[in-house]
Amino acid sequence: MEELERMQDMQVHTDLALEARESVTEGREGILGVSIEEEFHKDSGVRVTRVEVLDERGEQAIGKPRGVYITLEAEQMAVHDEGCHREISRALAEYIRELLKGFGSPTSVLAVGLGNQEVTSDSLGPQVLNNLMITRHLTGEQKEEAPGTFSVSGIVPGVMAQTGMETAEIIRGIVEETKPEALLVVDALAARSVSRLGTTIQLSNTGISPGSGVGNHRHSLTEESLGVPVIAIGVPTVVAAAAIVYDTVDALAELLEAAGASGAAEAVDGMELSERYQMVKELIEPRLGPMYVTPGNIDERVKLLGYIISEGINQVFGNKLPPHTEEQA
Amino acid sequence: MEELERMQDMQVHTDLALEARESVTEGREGILGVSIEEEFHKDSGVRVTRVEVLDERGEQAIGKPRGVYITLEAEQMAVHDEGCHREISRALAEYIRELLKGFGSPTSVLAVGLGNQEVTSDSLGPQVLNNLMITRHLTGEQKEEAPGTFSVSGIVPGVMAQTGMETAEIIRGIVEETKPEALLVVDALAARSVSRLGTTIQLSNTGISPGSGVGNHRHSLTEESLGVPVIAIGVPTVVAAAAIVYDTVDALAELLEAAGASGAAEAVDGMELSERYQMVKELIEPRLGPMYVTPGNIDERVKLLGYIISEGINQVFGNKLPPHTEEQA
Amino acid sequence: MEELERMQDMQVHTDLALEARESVTEGREGILGVSIEEEFHKDSGVRVTRVEVLDERGEQAIGKPRGVYITLEAEQMAVHDEGCHREISRALAEYIRELLKGFGSPTSVLAVGLGNQEVTSDSLGPQVLNNLMITRHLTGEQKEEAPGTFSVSGIVPGVMAQTGMETAEIIRGIVEETKPEALLVVDALAARSVSRLGTTIQLSNTGISPGSGVGNHRHSLTEESLGVPVIAIGVPTVVAAAAIVYDTVDALAELLEAAGASGAAEAVDGMELSERYQMVKELIEPRLGPMYVTPGNIDERVKLLGYIISEGINQVFGNKLPPHTEEQA
Amino acid sequence: MEELERMQDMQVHTDLALEARESVTEGREGILGVSIEEEFHKDSGVRVTRVEVLDERGEQAIGKPRGVYITLEAEQMAVHDEGCHREISRALAEYIRELLKGFGSPTSVLAVGLGNQEVTSDSLGPQVLNNLMITRHLTGEQKEEAPGTFSVSGIVPGVMAQTGMETAEIIRGIVEETKPEALLVVDALAARSVSRLGTTIQLSNTGISPGSGVGNHRHSLTEESLGVPVIAIGVPTVVAAAAIVYDTVDALAELLEAAGASGAAEAVDGMELSERYQMVKELIEPRLGPMYVTPGNIDERVKLLGYIISEGINQVFGNKLPPHTEEQA
Repeated sequence: MEELERMQDMQVHTDLALEARESVTEGREGILGVSIEEEFHKDSGVRVTRVEVLDERGEQAIGKPRGVYITLEAEQMAVHDEGCHREISRALAEYIRELLKGFGSPTSVLAVGLGNQEVTSDSLGPQVLNNLMITRHLTGEQKEEAPGTFSVSGIVPGVMAQTGMETAEIIRGIVEETKPEALLVVDALAARSVSRLGTTIQLSNTGISPGSGVGNHRHSLTEESLGVPVIAIGVPTVVAAAAIVYDTVDALAELLEAAGASGAAEAVDGMELSERYQMVKELIEPRLGPMYVTPGNIDERVKLLGYIISEGINQVFGNKLPPHTEEQA
Repeated sequence: MEELERMQDMQVHTDLALEARESVTEGREGILGVSIEEEFHKDSGVRVTRVEVLDERGEQAIGKPRGVYITLEAEQMAVHDEGCHREISRALAEYIRELLKGFGSPTSVLAVGLGNQEVTSDSLGPQVLNNLMITRHLTGEQKEEAPGTFSVSGIVPGVMAQTGMETAEIIRGIVEETKPEALLVVDALAARSVSRLGTTIQLSNTGISPGSGVGNHRHSLTEESLGVPVIAIGVPTVVAAAAIVYDTVDALAELLEAAGASGAAEAVDGMELSERYQMVKELIEPRLGPMYVTPGNIDERVKLLGYIISEGINQVFGNKLPPHTEEQA
Repeated sequence: MEELERMQDMQVHTDLALEARESVTEGREGILGVSIEEEFHKDSGVRVTRVEVLDERGEQAIGKPRGVYITLEAEQMAVHDEGCHREISRALAEYIRELLKGFGSPTSVLAVGLGNQEVTSDSLGPQVLNNLMITRHLTGEQKEEAPGTFSVSGIVPGVMAQTGMETAEIIRGIVEETKPEALLVVDALAARSVSRLGTTIQLSNTGISPGSGVGNHRHSLTEESLGVPVIAIGVPTVVAAAAIVYDTVDALAELLEAAGASGAAEAVDGMELSERYQMVKELIEPRLGPMYVTPGNIDERVKLLGYIISEGINQVFGNKLPPHTEEQA
Repeated sequence: MEELERMQDMQVHTDLALEARESVTEGREGILGVSIEEEFHKDSGVRVTRVEVLDERGEQAIGKPRGVYITLEAEQMAVHDEGCHREISRALAEYIRELLKGFGSPTSVLAVGLGNQEVTSDSLGPQVLNNLMITRHLTGEQKEEAPGTFSVSGIVPGVMAQTGMETAEIIRGIVEETKPEALLVVDALAARSVSRLGTTIQLSNTGISPGSGVGNHRHSLTEESLGVPVIAIGVPTVVAAAAIVYDTVDALAELLEAAGASGAAEAVDGMELSERYQMVKELIEPRLGPMYVTPGNIDERVKLLGYIISEGINQVFGNKLPPHTEEQA
C-alpha cells in the first residue's frame, strides 16, 4: 500500500517542497540529504516548516533542487483577519531578509510577477507586483523621500500564450540589460492537497524550476540560468485534477480493505494493483490533463495573499519598520 | 450498476438539460414528458439538441422546469476559427429570435450579465455585457443612427459576496423600475462532464433556477419571480470537483467487473454498493465541496465564447443581417 | 473685473461647495444663508472646511442645495505617505459618523460606487466599493465573526452608456427592493481648479444633484428622490477643459491691466468685456465641451484616494477602532 | 502674428507629423526637405496623408526624424460603424505591408504595446496587444493550423512608474535575447488639436522618438538604438493642457485685432508680444504641466481603435485575406 501511495503521490506534481517530502517514507533518521525543522507560532497560528535539501541524495528523494524551502501555513490567510495578516507579512519580511543575507545582501533587486493576470488562480504574481513600491527610477529629491536604500525594479512578463516567448527569455534579456544583483520571483503554485490552497506561502532560495507553477513555465529562472541569485515566493492556488482521481482510488482501496472484502482487497490491493491503477489513469486522465481544481472564492484568496506578500516585500525593500514597532517608537 | 450510475450522476449537479437527460435511463418510447430532437450541421460542425420538458413527469425525470432547452455543441468553439464562430453566432441569433417570438416578440429587453468578473471561469456574463450594443438611452438623432428597433438595457449585478444582496433582489428592483418586456440572462454554468467546458452553449426559455450557475445564485430569475419572461444563455465553464470522484469510482467498478474479480465485483457492485459509495463521498467530498475543475486556458475559452454570444445577441437586437447575407445584398 | 471673474467662475461647473463659495464675493458678514468654518490640523497637514448652506439665500448664492459640505484638503493625499493617509481615513470616519448621527443613526446602509470603471478618472466609486467590507448577506457564524453591527450592501451600477438606464432608476429599484435605511454614494467629481485634483475629499449630507460628477449623471440621488437619506463622498479628478480657457482670459486681462496698456485695458476690461468673452467662448468651447483635464498620474491618485476612503468607511461600518487606538488599548 | 502662432504651436509638443507640418509656413515650393501627398477615399471617408521627411532640412523644419509618416483620418473611427472600421483595418494592413517591404520583408516580428493599461487614454498599446494573434511559440500541428508564415511575439512592458526601468531597456534586452527581425510598436500619442483625438491613426517607419507618447518615454525605440527596424503605429488620445492656453491667447488676439481695439492690438500684437506671452505661460503652465485634455468617452474611442488596429495587424501577420475578398473567393 505504501508503495502505491508513494507512486501515486509522485505522479501528481507538487510545487511545494513540504508536500514532496511528505510523500517520502522516512527512515529512522529521516530522509537522507534532507533536513527538516518545524515551528509553531502560537500567537499568530502560523506553522513554519524549513526543508533544506542538502545534497544529491536529498534532491533525488524529494525531487527538488538543493536549497532552502520555508513554508508558512495558517488557515487565517484565507479569511479577513488583519492582525494575523500583519504578523505573516512581518514573518515573511524576516525570511526574505535572511535569504537576501545568504546572497551577500544585494541592494538592487528585480521583482518578477509570473503568471497570467487574466486567469484568477494564476494572477498572484501580477497582483503582488501591482502593490510593490518601485524605486529604481527615482532621482534626486524623490529618492531622498523614498525610505529604503534598495533599488527595486519590477516586471510582469505575461505567459507564453500572450507573448510567444518563454518567460525565461524575457527575464534573461532584462537582467542582462539592467543588471540587478538579485531576483525576487512571485508565482502561483500547484499543490497536491486542496487543503493548502490559499493557506500556504513557500519561500525558497532556489528560484523557479522547469515545469513548476500554474502556468507551467517550461524553462527555469535560477541563478544557474540567469547569473544572479533568485528568491522565489509562491502560493498554491490550484491542484491538478488528476490528484482527485488518485485520492479517490486510495480512499476506495482503504475502504475495501477495512471492510475485509477479501476478493476486493486482493483485486485492488493485490499484485496487479499498479497495473489496474494505470488503467484508471488511462481512462480518466486524458480528459483531465489540462484541468485544475480551484476554490470558488479564489479571487478573494488571491487578493488577500497578494496583499500579505506585497506588504512583506515592501517592508524589506522600503526599510520600513513593521507597523507594530513603528507605533512603539 | 445502472442504478448506481444514475444515482451518482444525479448527485453532481449539472446546469445542462442535455446532461440531466443523459443520466436518465430511457424507456422504449423515450423519457415520458420529455421530447428530444437532434440535428447535426455538417458545414459548421455544430450539433444542436432541443430538449423540451413538456409536463410534470418530464420535470421529475430530468430535474429541470418545463420549457425549451436548446444546446449548441462544437469543438471549434474553444479554438480560433472565425468562420465557425460566425456560423454559431448566426445560429444563436436565430434561436434567440425564435424564443422571443414565443414570448410575443417583446421590443424592450434587459440583458443581465450574471457572475463574478473577478473570477475568470465566472466572468462570461460580464464579458458578454461588455460587448453588447446598449440602446435604451439613445434619443433623437442617435436613435435614428442605431440600426435596430429594440430598446436594449443592460446590467452586471455582481455576486452576493460583492453586493450583500441576492442577484434576484437587484434584478427585481430594476425590472420594476424600468419595465423591460423581457429579460435575457447570460451566465457561466456548471456541467457534469469536463469535455463540455467551453464547447457548449445552452439557451432556454425558462430563466435561471435556484442553485444553478457557477456562482450559485440562491434565488431564481424566472417569469414567475419577475413578472416578465426570461431567456437564459449559458456556457459551462466548470465541473464540480466531486464529479471527478464519481467518475473514478465508476471507472474502478467497471475495471474490476471486467477483470472478473469476483470478490471485488461483489464488494463494489453488490448490495452494499450505495452504502460504500456514500462512505467514499463522506471521505472525500467535504474538502472538495467548494472546489471546481476548470481548464488551464479558461481565459481564452471565455473570451471566445463571450464574443460569439455577444455577436449573436447584437444581430438580433441590432436588426443587423448576419454578415453573410449583408454581403450578398 | 470682479464681476467678470465671478461670471466666468460660475460658467464652469464645480462639484465642490468650497469652490462654489470661493467664487462668490462676500459681504461684510459673509455670504447670507451660508455658514463657513475652517480648521487646520497641523499634525496631519489637513485643512477642513465646513460649508453649511442654511436657506434659500445660501442655495442661490452658491448654487448648491441646503445641507452640510465638509471638505478635507491635503497635498499628501496625492503621494505615498501612509501616516498621513491613516489620519485622513480616521478623520473621514469621524465625519461619516457625524452625518449618520444626523440621519438618526441608521444601521443598514447601501454603498453605491458611481462612475465608469473603464475610465481611470471616473473609477473612484467602483474602486472604493471593491475594498468595502460587505456584510448584509452574512448569516449565523459568519455574522458573529464580522465585527460591526451594521448591515452593509453595495452596488456598482455602471454608467448610462453601459446600461442604457439612469443610475437613479437602478438605485431606486434596488432601494425599494432591499430597503436600506441610508445610502452612502461615492463618486469622482469635477473641480474648477486643477490644484484640487486628487488632493481633496468632499463629504455632504445632500446626496448627488443632477448634472454633477465626472460622468454627468442626469438625475439625482437624494433623500427627496429615493426616500432615504444620502451621504455623498467625492474626490475631484477632472476639470472641464473650458476652465483653462477662462483662466487664460483672466490671466491675460490681469497682465494687460498691470502693464497699463490703456487701450487693451479698455478693450479687455471695458464695457464690451462680457461680450468679447462670449465670443472667445463661442470660438473655443464647442470643441472642448466634452473634454476634461486630468493629471498624467491619475491612476495612482485614484488608487490612493480610493484606499483612503474605503478604509474610512470600513472603520465606521466595521466598528473597527482606528488602528491608533487599537494599539493603545 | 504668424511668427507668434508658429512659436506657440512649436511649444506644444505633437506626436503627429501631420500637425508638425501644419504649423510650418510653407514657401512657394512647399517645405524644403519634406514631401507631402494627400488622398481622400470617398467611399470610406478616410483621408490619407503621407508626409515624408527627406533630409536634414526637413527634420529641422518639422522636428521629426527622417522617414515616412502615413496618417489615416476619419470621423467615423470614433463611432460604431463596422463597415468603415473594416475598410480602415484593411487600409492599415496595406500600409503595414508596404513599410515591412521597405525593411526587406522580415518574417519574425516583436509587437510592443507601449503605455499604461491602468490609464484609459494611455492603454491603446496594451489593448491592441490583447487582441493580436501570437504565433512564435507554436510548434508542429498548431503551427500548421496557424494561417500565417510570420512568427509573431508580443510584450506589454508597462511604464516606468510601474517597472522602474526605461521601456527602451526592457525592449532592448528582449530584442537581444529573442532576435526578432523587426519591431511593431503601438502607442497612444499626444496631439496638438482636440479634433484629432480618437479619429486619427499614424504609421511610420521611424520608430518612437524620445519624449513622445502619452506616457512620455524618455528614451527611443528606433533602428539606431535597437539594431532592428521599427514600425510605429499610434493614435492621439490626449492634448497637453497647455495647448488650450495657447489656443485661447490666439483667439483673443484675433478678436481684439478684428475689433480694431488699437491699444489692445498694440499691446497684444505689439513687439512685446512674445514677452507677454511668456508671462501668461509662466502664470498658467506650472499647474498645467503634467495635465492632459481627453474626451469623456475616451474608453469607447480607445476600445474601437484598438480593435481596428489589431484587426489590421492580424490581417498582415495571419496572411488572412481581408473579409471582403474572402467572401468573394
